[in-house]
Amino acid sequence: MANFKGHALPGSFFLLFGLWWSVKHPLQHCWKKRQPGPRPKLPSFFNRMDFVEGVLKVFFAFVGIMAEQFVPDGPHAHLYSTKEQAWVKLMNWQHSTMYLFYGISGIADILSMSSLPVPQGIDRLGLSLALFVEGFLFYFHVHNRPSLDKHIHSLLLVAVFAGSASTFLEVFKRDHPVLELFRSSVAILQGTWFFQIGFVLFPFNGPEWDQELHDNIMFITMCFCWHYAVALVIIAISYTFVWLGVQRFVARQRGDTEIGLRKTSKSNDASSQKALLQDSDEE
Amino acid sequence: MANFKGHALPGSFFLLFGLWWSVKHPLQHCWKKRQPGPRPKLPSFFNRMDFVEGVLKVFFAFVGIMAEQFVPDGPHAHLYSTKEQAWVKLMNWQHSTMYLFYGISGIADILSMSSLPVPQGIDRLGLSLALFVEGFLFYFHVHNRPSLDKHIHSLLLVAVFAGSASTFLEVFKRDHPVLELFRSSVAILQGTWFFQIGFVLFPFNGPEWDQELHDNIMFITMCFCWHYAVALVIIAISYTFVWLGVQRFVARQRGDTEIGLRKTSKSNDASSQKALLQDSDEE
Amino acid sequence: MANFKGHALPGSFFLLFGLWWSVKHPLQHCWKKRQPGPRPKLPSFFNRMDFVEGVLKVFFAFVGIMAEQFVPDGPHAHLYSTKEQAWVKLMNWQHSTMYLFYGISGIADILSMSSLPVPQGIDRLGLSLALFVEGFLFYFHVHNRPSLDKHIHSLLLVAVFAGSASTFLEVFKRDHPVLELFRSSVAILQGTWFFQIGFVLFPFNGPEWDQELHDNIMFITMCFCWHYAVALVIIAISYTFVWLGVQRFVARQRGDTEIGLRKTSKSNDASSQKALLQDSDEE
Amino acid sequence: MANFKGHALPGSFFLLFGLWWSVKHPLQHCWKKRQPGPRPKLPSFFNRMDFVEGVLKVFFAFVGIMAEQFVPDGPHAHLYSTKEQAWVKLMNWQHSTMYLFYGISGIADILSMSSLPVPQGIDRLGLSLALFVEGFLFYFHVHNRPSLDKHIHSLLLVAVFAGSASTFLEVFKRDHPVLELFRSSVAILQGTWFFQIGFVLFPFNGPEWDQELHDNIMFITMCFCWHYAVALVIIAISYTFVWLGVQRFVARQRGDTEIGLRKTSKSNDASSQKALLQDSDEE
Repeated sequence: MANFKGHALPGSFFLLFGLWWSVKHPLQHCWKKRQPGPRPKLPSFFNRMDFVEGVLKVFFAFVGIMAEQFVPDGPHAHLYSTKEQAWVKLMNWQHSTMYLFYGISGIADILSMSSLPVPQGIDRLGLSLALFVEGFLFYFHVHNRPSLDKHIHSLLLVAVFAGSASTFLEVFKRDHPVLELFRSSVAILQGTWFFQIGFVLFPFNGPEWDQELHDNIMFITMCFCWHYAVALVIIAISYTFVWLGVQRFVARQRGDTEIGLRKTSKSNDASSQKALLQDSDEE
Repeated sequence: MANFKGHALPGSFFLLFGLWWSVKHPLQHCWKKRQPGPRPKLPSFFNRMDFVEGVLKVFFAFVGIMAEQFVPDGPHAHLYSTKEQAWVKLMNWQHSTMYLFYGISGIADILSMSSLPVPQGIDRLGLSLALFVEGFLFYFHVHNRPSLDKHIHSLLLVAVFAGSASTFLEVFKRDHPVLELFRSSVAILQGTWFFQIGFVLFPFNGPEWDQELHDNIMFITMCFCWHYAVALVIIAISYTFVWLGVQRFVARQRGDTEIGLRKTSKSNDASSQKALLQDSDEE
Repeated sequence: MANFKGHALPGSFFLLFGLWWSVKHPLQHCWKKRQPGPRPKLPSFFNRMDFVEGVLKVFFAFVGIMAEQFVPDGPHAHLYSTKEQAWVKLMNWQHSTMYLFYGISGIADILSMSSLPVPQGIDRLGLSLALFVEGFLFYFHVHNRPSLDKHIHSLLLVAVFAGSASTFLEVFKRDHPVLELFRSSVAILQGTWFFQIGFVLFPFNGPEWDQELHDNIMFITMCFCWHYAVALVIIAISYTFVWLGVQRFVARQRGDTEIGLRKTSKSNDASSQKALLQDSDEE
Repeated sequence: MANFKGHALPGSFFLLFGLWWSVKHPLQHCWKKRQPGPRPKLPSFFNRMDFVEGVLKVFFAFVGIMAEQFVPDGPHAHLYSTKEQAWVKLMNWQHSTMYLFYGISGIADILSMSSLPVPQGIDRLGLSLALFVEGFLFYFHVHNRPSLDKHIHSLLLVAVFAGSASTFLEVFKRDHPVLELFRSSVAILQGTWFFQIGFVLFPFNGPEWDQELHDNIMFITMCFCWHYAVALVIIAISYTFVWLGVQRFVARQRGDTEIGLRKTSKSNDASSQKALLQDSDEE
């Protein structure tokens, strides 16, 4: 992990999930809003999405664990070297542990989507625990490091624990739009912040950052807020496009229905057409 | 910011908003209480107030950012000076960032008031985030300062984070009168405390305060509580006047109706007058 | 305050209120339980109790402030001595501030009991704030003191902040029996712990406690738990007696009604007596 | 306690309760799910289980206190030795105090199960307090110890306080399946972690662990997460078996009913059989 790629990889995962959630959750809510009345038309499609999400999580977690273990300089599943009387590559083991809990969260997602009698909310608890474990391991991860390195990682913890806490709230307040958008935004924040850590600690060109300069720490703190502002803007744009898309989809669907009705009406009597049009208006 | 005016300016903003809320929220609640039954008479006027509030927030935030950037000794939108290999005026950039999030909060207010399908509670989340970011930046702001300076700023954080937490609760407990009054009170507290910081760090006359004297720190801690007691008194007075005003307004309205009824009744028959009077009594 | 009496006084107040609550709240709940159906028979008496409680709080707070200010070695309402260029008796001023917020809490109680349109829950917020301010001032109170002194005061903070948090919860979960009993128990704990602090820091006889001995700190930590166990036992006993008392009172009341009915029935016809007896059974 | 057995004993208790809860709570929920409609068939059996649980808690707490007091090198109920002017075996007294609060929690369980008018939720408050007191005493327990010892005990606190907080939530969200499973999982975690502490601090064979080596601390942190992963797996397995068991039990019960019905139907007329079968289908 101690290079740019090692930070870009988890960053991409979080960014991916954050962006995906920033599309999925607005889609669910706009869909619900456009469809008043007790017609539960969405389940089959949305449930399948959640199922795929769970499977992807498990897959990514598996790939992540394998990568951490079997990269050339990885521990290759050896935990303790009796020859050297020392632990083997604990950093890789810690990252594997983080991936493990995201895998557990994925399994919880899949179980929640299945028809098994799993208590509702276990998927949110799973995600909350995965985030907590990530933050927990990071917290003890960054001791004995230079100031800037420590600071930039502990800012990550703000995003991680905020996500963990708000996801835990979702156990009780399921499908709360504000909590879901908040979760999406901190996931995006985490994703982009991983990239930022990579850029700062392993700059592509130019000199290394001075790890002890107070101005660097001040800038990084502020930069974290900017990342969050960008995450909020992304969420807002995503929400807007989803809403416009749903609007257009519903309008086209209605148009199709009306065209269909007109065609039908030619061969039918006028009174039935009127009744049908009234129906379509009520939708 | 490192002078009295720099503390008076944000102080005035918070004081203004605190006082405004201490009028607005009692007004909403007294109005609701005086009008039993399902008559939603208030929306148009109260919604317009909230809209104006949002626009003012965006405006103040914009002015604040511009002022921080383009004052004579500001950064003029330059972040990094390649010539000097150093960050430019990070203090001003940090304040701009704070204003930016209040601007975002203002936009969230405006969107919530509009007819767009924005999830309910996004305005409270926006305010909560703006307060959190303010506290977050202040927290890392005050390192390496003398004791009294550090202490007086960290007391501010108590007001900021209390406000942020209670506003976050409002996402779930919308229109809860106690939370709204609490938010008003900590906003007033923040406003007056900014002035206090200005008076202590940049005294108009007399000697400078001894930054390391323990008695000064003890006094300042206690003084913070007095400020809050004053904020509570202001809220109580404001609530009382609003309630008396609503009482009188309702009484006069009823009086007008009755006078109107009498005038009408002269030209009408007695039975209709009786019916109308009964209606006005039921109000 | 720096003597045994100075700790016994606030200790007595908290103990008094804790014991009082441990009677009042069980009384309210047992009463409600014994009286099924929608008959709100209790208001006038219980409201009067709450009113008296509020008045007593204001009175005690007033006496406390006066005592702190005008004891022979008090500040006599002088805050800053321009002659000595120093703050006057800040300790007394801090204690006055604590009393002030309990006074405000008392006023909030009285207003809540009145027929004024005060938002529900303002009394709980007032008490929560008073406890928070107490803890807040104590927190900055105990710097630069010997280990044991610091430790014994910071244990007090556990009781104070637990009380403040649970009372804040009561704003939203009003009349929740578990929260009310918890509040009573931490009030008793605070009361007895003030006495304990007095005994430890100003022993009547025997040698002074060694302020730096680790065993003393260990004992005091454990002792705090014992105090809480005792508080729980007191609550349990109080609850039992109140419940037995209500049982007996209700039984006697029913007995009286039946005797009354028998007397009446002698002069009346048999059918009406039967109807009345059925009524009394339904109570 | 300063040996392997002293850690294995409390570890076994927590493991026992954790495993028991991981069977009891799924059983309650699967039972409820299998039995739609308002038939409260479970009380007598489940209440008896809870009663036994309370009695066991009180019994274990009593045994624990006695063991701590009257082991050969225990304090034998002496708290202060006037001869040596010192506290006697405070460690044992602290452990006794922890057991005392679990005893109080057991009493609260028993009272809640009884027909006495105890406020609902007092049993959860009791458990939450017992866990809090355990964490509270441990927190001040581990000062002045080597790094690894301190770290491994403070990880325990994470499990203890997480359990205390989630159990406190159960006062308000009673019978919430996610909270109950979470409580079970942290109880198992606490149990296995006590064993881990024993293995690390008092290894059976091989050299002692280096108390200051940073790699050991990193491993232990990660190991704590693995323990939790195992606890989650145990919960999952337990839940699965309970569910399969309930499924089979219900199926067999229905089978029995049907067989019974067939036997009956031979001697009865056909119409009554049809009615009975419809009843059994509705179950």
